[in-house]
Amino acid sequence: MSVTGHLDDIASVGRDGDSGGYHRLAWTAPDLTLREWFVGTSEGLGLDVETDRNGNMWAWWGDASAGDAVITGSHLDSVPDGGNYDGPLGIASAFAAVADLQHRGVQPQRPLAVACFTDEEGGRFGVACIGSRLAAGVLPPERALALRDADGITFAEALTSAGRDPRVLGAEPERLARIGAFIELHVEQGRGLIDLDAPIGVGTAILPHGRWRVDIQGDANHAGTTRMSDRHDPMVGFAHLVLAAQREAAMRDCAPGPGGSAEPPLSGHAARATVGKVRCLPNAVNAIPAEVTGWLDARAEDEATLDAMLEAIGRDLLNLPGLHMTIAMESRTPAQHFDPTLSRSLAASLGDAPLLATGAGHDAGVLAEVGVPTAMIFVRNPTGISHSPEEHAEDADCETGGTALADVLAELLTADTLRQ
Amino acid sequence: MSVTGHLDDIASVGRDGDSGGYHRLAWTAPDLTLREWFVGTSEGLGLDVETDRNGNMWAWWGDASAGDAVITGSHLDSVPDGGNYDGPLGIASAFAAVADLQHRGVQPQRPLAVACFTDEEGGRFGVACIGSRLAAGVLPPERALALRDADGITFAEALTSAGRDPRVLGAEPERLARIGAFIELHVEQGRGLIDLDAPIGVGTAILPHGRWRVDIQGDANHAGTTRMSDRHDPMVGFAHLVLAAQREAAMRDCAPGPGGSAEPPLSGHAARATVGKVRCLPNAVNAIPAEVTGWLDARAEDEATLDAMLEAIGRDLLNLPGLHMTIAMESRTPAQHFDPTLSRSLAASLGDAPLLATGAGHDAGVLAEVGVPTAMIFVRNPTGISHSPEEHAEDADCETGGTALADVLAELLTADTLRQ
Repeated sequence: MSVTGHLDDIASVGRDGDSGGYHRLAWTAPDLTLREWFVGTSEGLGLDVETDRNGNMWAWWGDASAGDAVITGSHLDSVPDGGNYDGPLGIASAFAAVADLQHRGVQPQRPLAVACFTDEEGGRFGVACIGSRLAAGVLPPERALALRDADGITFAEALTSAGRDPRVLGAEPERLARIGAFIELHVEQGRGLIDLDAPIGVGTAILPHGRWRVDIQGDANHAGTTRMSDRHDPMVGFAHLVLAAQREAAMRDCAPGPGGSAEPPLSGHAARATVGKVRCLPNAVNAIPAEVTGWLDARAEDEATLDAMLEAIGRDLLNLPGLHMTIAMESRTPAQHFDPTLSRSLAASLGDAPLLATGAGHDAGVLAEVGVPTAMIFVRNPTGISHSPEEHAEDADCETGGTALADVLAELLTADTLRQ
Repeated sequence: MSVTGHLDDIASVGRDGDSGGYHRLAWTAPDLTLREWFVGTSEGLGLDVETDRNGNMWAWWGDASAGDAVITGSHLDSVPDGGNYDGPLGIASAFAAVADLQHRGVQPQRPLAVACFTDEEGGRFGVACIGSRLAAGVLPPERALALRDADGITFAEALTSAGRDPRVLGAEPERLARIGAFIELHVEQGRGLIDLDAPIGVGTAILPHGRWRVDIQGDANHAGTTRMSDRHDPMVGFAHLVLAAQREAAMRDCAPGPGGSAEPPLSGHAARATVGKVRCLPNAVNAIPAEVTGWLDARAEDEATLDAMLEAIGRDLLNLPGLHMTIAMESRTPAQHFDPTLSRSLAASLGDAPLLATGAGHDAGVLAEVGVPTAMIFVRNPTGISHSPEEHAEDADCETGGTALADVLAELLTADTLRQ
């Protein structure tokens, strides 16, 4: 079956009839339906499905216990009102590639698995890449189990409801050590490949990024009777935060010109700052708020640019009189570089596909961080929009990606040795 | 009992141990406790308590069915995390004044009632002055019954839970026609009396005010991968709204100098604009929002100033490219003028107390709007802060207010005729 055939199979799961977007939060009914589809499709291809202690699924072609395994795949969960490509395109392409390899009569020298990682988006419990982070040992099980969703349900309760045993979560160093190469194919979430006029590209790195929580306290008061000059309005401080983030990132975000080059664009310049989440107390129309909290998501080409940008945003907020402001880092991830040898050989075998870095986090980044040889293939997104119903990939580009993945997997499966 | 003695009686009801603020939303347990206290205190003074079809309570001294009645009172509900004065001070002062009149041996020529209006703040169902608006016939019962609180409970369901019959709501023109004068005593919610160095003042009018809902739509996208120059971020539009409102109101909000005058300051200048409520979709840290909604509360000395301010705010937002913005009026109330003859005679009998207008809405404003002869007495608030735990009134000022109210009621109850 083609890549888009697989995507069509699941096109109705968790779909919002109004927006056309997808709601496939981890361990909800749509996610469980997709997990069943994963098992069924794998079995149809003759693969043996194993669900590990963290809920990640592995569909094996060959001996799961042998070393030097070639792994490909992605995730099936979505952000709220997301698209049908972010995650599923990597799984659908993996299935199409396996069928292609079987059709070509490829004789693997080592095992292959299609992997489906659990809760990559963090759309339900607020922490991204829970499945791969647990496996990599960078997220302690006790911290994961205590996370709560918007309804107050803990991750532990969600696992139990889905028939899983929450007590078995934990790191899997032996499993990861058996991976010789992990290739994640993913829809691009920006406009890099549009400008490069290329249907596919090879990922080199994930930009350094982090999340900061900015609590702004002022004086709650009556909206009608408090003179403008007597106010300490934290919403005004929040507005300055939003505009400072926008300004400081925009002045540092210089996109490379179209045409691009085969050099990793980490030597270029990119900076992003977003305030996408806000909480206001008491959030009443006729009350000057007591407190407004904004969450700042910031990413940049390098650590120095990220630091400079954050410092400039913070400096801007210091000048607001009468407000008490605290900025707390919730997470910070350094640049994650994929395996350079694997990435360059991938690009070469894909007809000199362009290399590009990304501002988005991925399970591939988590695995790269703990030493798994990892690379990514990006498929062009003609809208440049992701985490939205407008996310898209042309059918032809999807099939180009699937064929490219099959080519790469064939090389990896039949090479004399993976480690160079 | 003194005014502050009555306030002390209820000081623990609905109090938040952490903030020191009060949560007495309409028809919740604390509100019901306060209603019981109202009945008990009234009966202790020999007053006959009647609860009308809209849940407003009237504690009568004399014949409730006679005309030309003198009414005083306020409300007992609070905003979330409000103070113990906004509302209760008017009821406590009324009880203290009645005891004072009885002690003085005043022989009323007409009936008096202490009134407690239901759900003045609108803190639960989003519409202020529900009790007085229903009685005045300016809020249709079917609209009130369909209102929902933050938990999705309708006003009708809340009434039923509290043992009330929601089917009997409705206008009470005959009841209002029997009112010869309504005097509401209230803590001041601004700094007018601080600057005038006066413990009490007489209200002349409520400024014209309204609420506008501003929906800002942009393009949802990934916070890490979308270049700053490719964004249409509605949170940036929201930040411009907040700052435009702040700027346009501040430039028009010229407080009268301290010292003041006995002239109504409606000839002065006042303007207020506040964005105290925000909603963001999807409100995720790593997503450029699809839509941000802000609620604008705006008030001004006169309609022309209000119009000019709103136009300037709207003009500022028109210049933001790539965002779709709609501004919808949710409510607009013209200036409500209290009875000028009653107000001036009140000020005279209170030793030339200063006259001042207010930016806050009150049940007195609703009743004035439908022709009830109405006046207000304000008691100084040394913090100038209201709708907050910091709201305050000095004990001495509270007793000054209570005595002033008793003096005024004595005059009204013993005058040959109320209508002039």
